[in-house]
Amino acid sequence: MSDGAVSRREALATGAVLLGGAAAQRTPVYVPPPPGKKPGWALVGLGKLTIEELLPAFARCEKSRVAALVSGVPEKAKALAARYGVPEKHIYDYEAFDRVKDNPDVDVVYVVLPNSLHAEYTVRAAKAGKHVFCEKPMAPTTKECREMIAACRAANVRLMIAYRLHHEPHHLRATDLARGKELGVQLVIADLTQQVPPGTWRTDRKMGGGGPVPDIGIYCLNAARYLTGEEPAAVRATTFTPKDDLRFGDVEQRCLFTLSFPSGAQANCSCDYGLDDVSQFTMIGPDGSARMDNAFRYRGLKMTVTQRGVQRVTELAQIDQFAAEIDLFSQCILENKPHKTPGEHGLQDVTDIEAIYEAARSGRPVKLNS
Amino acid sequence: MSDGAVSRREALATGAVLLGGAAAQRTPVYVPPPPGKKPGWALVGLGKLTIEELLPAFARCEKSRVAALVSGVPEKAKALAARYGVPEKHIYDYEAFDRVKDNPDVDVVYVVLPNSLHAEYTVRAAKAGKHVFCEKPMAPTTKECREMIAACRAANVRLMIAYRLHHEPHHLRATDLARGKELGVQLVIADLTQQVPPGTWRTDRKMGGGGPVPDIGIYCLNAARYLTGEEPAAVRATTFTPKDDLRFGDVEQRCLFTLSFPSGAQANCSCDYGLDDVSQFTMIGPDGSARMDNAFRYRGLKMTVTQRGVQRVTELAQIDQFAAEIDLFSQCILENKPHKTPGEHGLQDVTDIEAIYEAARSGRPVKLNS
Repeated sequence: MSDGAVSRREALATGAVLLGGAAAQRTPVYVPPPPGKKPGWALVGLGKLTIEELLPAFARCEKSRVAALVSGVPEKAKALAARYGVPEKHIYDYEAFDRVKDNPDVDVVYVVLPNSLHAEYTVRAAKAGKHVFCEKPMAPTTKECREMIAACRAANVRLMIAYRLHHEPHHLRATDLARGKELGVQLVIADLTQQVPPGTWRTDRKMGGGGPVPDIGIYCLNAARYLTGEEPAAVRATTFTPKDDLRFGDVEQRCLFTLSFPSGAQANCSCDYGLDDVSQFTMIGPDGSARMDNAFRYRGLKMTVTQRGVQRVTELAQIDQFAAEIDLFSQCILENKPHKTPGEHGLQDVTDIEAIYEAARSGRPVKLNS
Repeated sequence: MSDGAVSRREALATGAVLLGGAAAQRTPVYVPPPPGKKPGWALVGLGKLTIEELLPAFARCEKSRVAALVSGVPEKAKALAARYGVPEKHIYDYEAFDRVKDNPDVDVVYVVLPNSLHAEYTVRAAKAGKHVFCEKPMAPTTKECREMIAACRAANVRLMIAYRLHHEPHHLRATDLARGKELGVQLVIADLTQQVPPGTWRTDRKMGGGGPVPDIGIYCLNAARYLTGEEPAAVRATTFTPKDDLRFGDVEQRCLFTLSFPSGAQANCSCDYGLDDVSQFTMIGPDGSARMDNAFRYRGLKMTVTQRGVQRVTELAQIDQFAAEIDLFSQCILENKPHKTPGEHGLQDVTDIEAIYEAARSGRPVKLNS
């Protein structure tokens, strides 16, 4: 797995550098903040997630600060800028976004837009010479994911996909248990269901890049990958779309999918946009099992481990998952260190999701990663 | 659904009666015990389940008593007969079993043998004029199930398949919730895994009628049926068999299967013979969900219902599930009343299981019950 750190070798392999001369000189040169200065982040998209989770998270960050806001609604941007101490001149609308290139206070662009816009804004941010932190799913198609990776390489900027649970204590402990001798997990059952309101990008196939699979099923898929430490070799899937629910004219309500890994481990997953909130996984090995309640939520995670018939709740800190991943990326930039969720990691999920939809369409298993 | 009570109309429809005259006269006539006398049960098969659960359960029965034992191991039968007050002359070996016909103290035969013997002993018991209570799965094949139903009809005896959870308070409450407006369940996730020892009928395809699917997967399948109140219209399945585990030369270790019901409800199920004990289901509706821990176990069942974000544990009695189903069948016999799990109910599970294996073999969805 590529670790996402831009090594000299990798930089040499990018097209821009290989073109040499003039092209290489056009590659923006990233100048890290001076020692002691926190990297500045531009938040692109001021929706519910940004307002309710991300901006408050920055207040808890030790290594990151909000430096700019990008929005199509000036009043909202101004009000939030005032509240979070962002200078008004650091507010951009979507057209003016590319001017962020000339703002030395911005080191990272955080793309918090509907999925269909991830690729465009990642590429534009890279071209502006900014590191990119992009929400999951990385993009609706693997083609776009590859363009995003190429653009960041060409611009010599870092790219991280916002998989917050890779840095969350319960999931880290679950991963250790799953892959280690303690459990040696062979079966993962993961479920994420929620009601979505009508008329948002979530139920618009083009904007969301699909229905519940890329938006919430991705949590089940991604968990199965990091818990087993393997990539799926085959997927099976079936979708359900009701005839009488206006929300689901364009996307399915539900997808049930099964992942088969090379070792023989498997995952049985479900995601649904028309049912009440359930967010859980169970992982089972030869001598024990563990279950996570509120597994994919922002808070309230609870892991119960059962071994030799004895159940115990694992006591771990509840952290601000957003602050943790944001600070981690800032640190990776400052220290030029690798991280676990580069573009290639996001691309793998999107590859798997394309296979899940193909399996659901064809009614047949789809082989992968062989 | 046939209710299993032998009505006059049903009796008239049996072959024996339709043959009329001599054939009809050969049909054994069942004489119920005198008022106040508990029906006497013959237990066929003195394995772990009989010794550890069934015989102790009879001590808690109000309407049933152990009247005879059938075993191939005389010493075991004698010791158990002495302990449970069964006269030595009421001990039979498998060859002599048909002589139970001449024992008026026996009203019911409880078949607790390996699955491959269910059909033979049900038919022999029916021919002996005894009512039949048969362990699940009903038989390895639908053909045998049909023969069992026909034999009991011809003999004018009752047949009940031992689905203990149909009479268990938590599952009854779950079924009410699932089918009612409170939850209106559309998705069921059910998992049952356990380690099996090597060298028993469970890992012998012929004796077990399959691997984990008919033995433990049937709990997930049957729960999905009674929770939704529907019969599956399509199944999808995949099995896993490890190459390096001597237990699984003949049967699969694991099967993951998906049931799709006519209403759009679905169930995602797993069963596994090579993993630690997990026994659970989650059911999810538009406005709430419920999960059952220790769902398919003999005791310790726990149901947690979540509605409007509030979780509450449902307080219900833990009953002796075996005593309950045994007494229920005795009562149905005494009062000629219907019950919920006649042969037709067992046949439906076996029909679905055959479809599950066909789906796993072909890699394609298999349509059912259309």
